[in-house]
Amino acid sequence: MKHLGIIIESVGEGVENLQVGDHVLPVFTGECGDCAHCKSEESNMCDLLRINTDRGVMLSDGKPRFSIKGTPINHFLGTSTFSEYTVIHSGCLAKINRLAPLDKVCILSCGISTGLGATLNVAKPKKGSSVAVFGLGAVGLAAAEGARISGASRIIGIDRNPKRFEEAKKFGVNEFVNPKDHDKPVQEVIAEMTNGGVDRSLECTGNINAMISAFECVHDGWGVAVLVGVPNKDAVFMTKPINVLNERTLKGTFFGNYKPRTHLPSVVDMYMNKELEVEKFITHRVPFSEINKAFDYMVKGEGLRCIISMEE
Amino acid sequence: MKHLGIIIESVGEGVENLQVGDHVLPVFTGECGDCAHCKSEESNMCDLLRINTDRGVMLSDGKPRFSIKGTPINHFLGTSTFSEYTVIHSGCLAKINRLAPLDKVCILSCGISTGLGATLNVAKPKKGSSVAVFGLGAVGLAAAEGARISGASRIIGIDRNPKRFEEAKKFGVNEFVNPKDHDKPVQEVIAEMTNGGVDRSLECTGNINAMISAFECVHDGWGVAVLVGVPNKDAVFMTKPINVLNERTLKGTFFGNYKPRTHLPSVVDMYMNKELEVEKFITHRVPFSEINKAFDYMVKGEGLRCIISMEE
Repeated sequence: MKHLGIIIESVGEGVENLQVGDHVLPVFTGECGDCAHCKSEESNMCDLLRINTDRGVMLSDGKPRFSIKGTPINHFLGTSTFSEYTVIHSGCLAKINRLAPLDKVCILSCGISTGLGATLNVAKPKKGSSVAVFGLGAVGLAAAEGARISGASRIIGIDRNPKRFEEAKKFGVNEFVNPKDHDKPVQEVIAEMTNGGVDRSLECTGNINAMISAFECVHDGWGVAVLVGVPNKDAVFMTKPINVLNERTLKGTFFGNYKPRTHLPSVVDMYMNKELEVEKFITHRVPFSEINKAFDYMVKGEGLRCIISMEE
Repeated sequence: MKHLGIIIESVGEGVENLQVGDHVLPVFTGECGDCAHCKSEESNMCDLLRINTDRGVMLSDGKPRFSIKGTPINHFLGTSTFSEYTVIHSGCLAKINRLAPLDKVCILSCGISTGLGATLNVAKPKKGSSVAVFGLGAVGLAAAEGARISGASRIIGIDRNPKRFEEAKKFGVNEFVNPKDHDKPVQEVIAEMTNGGVDRSLECTGNINAMISAFECVHDGWGVAVLVGVPNKDAVFMTKPINVLNERTLKGTFFGNYKPRTHLPSVVDMYMNKELEVEKFITHRVPFSEINKAFDYMVKGEGLRCIISMEE
């Protein structure tokens, strides 16, 4: 489910990075540009905007900008984009190429970039390498798309739902493993398929056992596993230290390590340059009046992304 | 405890990389040059020589080259260097600068390179960064030496034995934490000292709790923890997945990720160029007839490295 992109209608006092008419992608996280994370080359976990966007109010005065007949209505995830007009912190808006179709590139402001960036920015598979992707939902398929773009030759999709395998082929996935088909742990199955393990793995389910499998299925000496999915808060990651000592790397990522303002414009350009294929993620479109259909698609796991248009 | 370096006395059939008179460092692991690990830029875990050196025999014919009055005596860790003459697989010998003093650089063929490489090759701290080193034995101090060479500005040593703090200063350690002095987990103590965590950490004790602390004490967004110490085989590494997802990296290393033949010569050259300080690791010297003194120093934790000379 996805709102459309946004065109700037007006800018507040002191906003220097945006102008009326700019095309932007709104992001649930942000980039203040001044904190230690924004100043680090490696992090995108902005101190000011990463967590505070869930407060439901503007940071400047602690108040919302929405109301119905005088009753305040809180913002949603800093973006509040199920709306024709919204007010957003300028640090949560990425100015993009004006030629990009907003009704397509809007999907790059959340999960698709999360999966794509997990592969391109964090796992960084080499051309010709092997990549395992755990979970073939939209985030996992975006991770696979990153592996396809990187030129990985073996992209192994792991999912307990075999219905997902056919669609995954469009995203470069060319081998499939259903853990239900095997009596042994899936990491052992993958190690056998790949002469000791894959070069890279991406965990896009949030299931703790998949996280452990994703780590243990990478090759010793050089394998890198990247955790993307968010688990329940009581989950504990466990592995034998020797799995680490044998030169495996475990990494985690948030929003694909993209700094929203700095990096999203280039992701849009990847689409404009026909390097990244965005259309195949968009399986449904509904007008705003049918927004509940979009929620139903999401809850039932039907399709990948549904675009919601404000126009009927 | 450390044997001296070696000068090649003769070479076997088919050996092309070494000649009589070459100065070499013998290594407990090796580099065949042909396996997937040797061909990988990232790994040093040679398939042929990493594990097979503990067989006690030569790989070519499965027999030892030592005997006393006809009774075979097995090799030790592929090197058997407590001896005036030994026979070693050419893949386990690193040819080094002939001007390097063998009675000093010999310590670079094992633990010192393990700690040094863990920092220089794996953790890779930037100039001005903060580095935590868990365990201030010889390997941990070599890791600290790597942080000093890298220009880290804060090098925090963690050890339960405060007697080690004074000596550690010579290796660049400029802050100390004794976990026994605190009621809270040491990772929390370090996070408070460093505004959220260190940039890099190195675990050089092999204690499972230190491993977990070393991972959890690195800063979110960019922190990298490197496990060096080998734990007992029943230990389990445990952490909340959110600690990973918040963009921390966990890595392990074997022999500091140095490929013995390819990389050790440059470590020796670091010493020759006065970049790496080797002398401060050598706290004792004994003749071979007093080898048991060297074992005693090691067992009691006295000093760092004891050089054993074959000459009385």
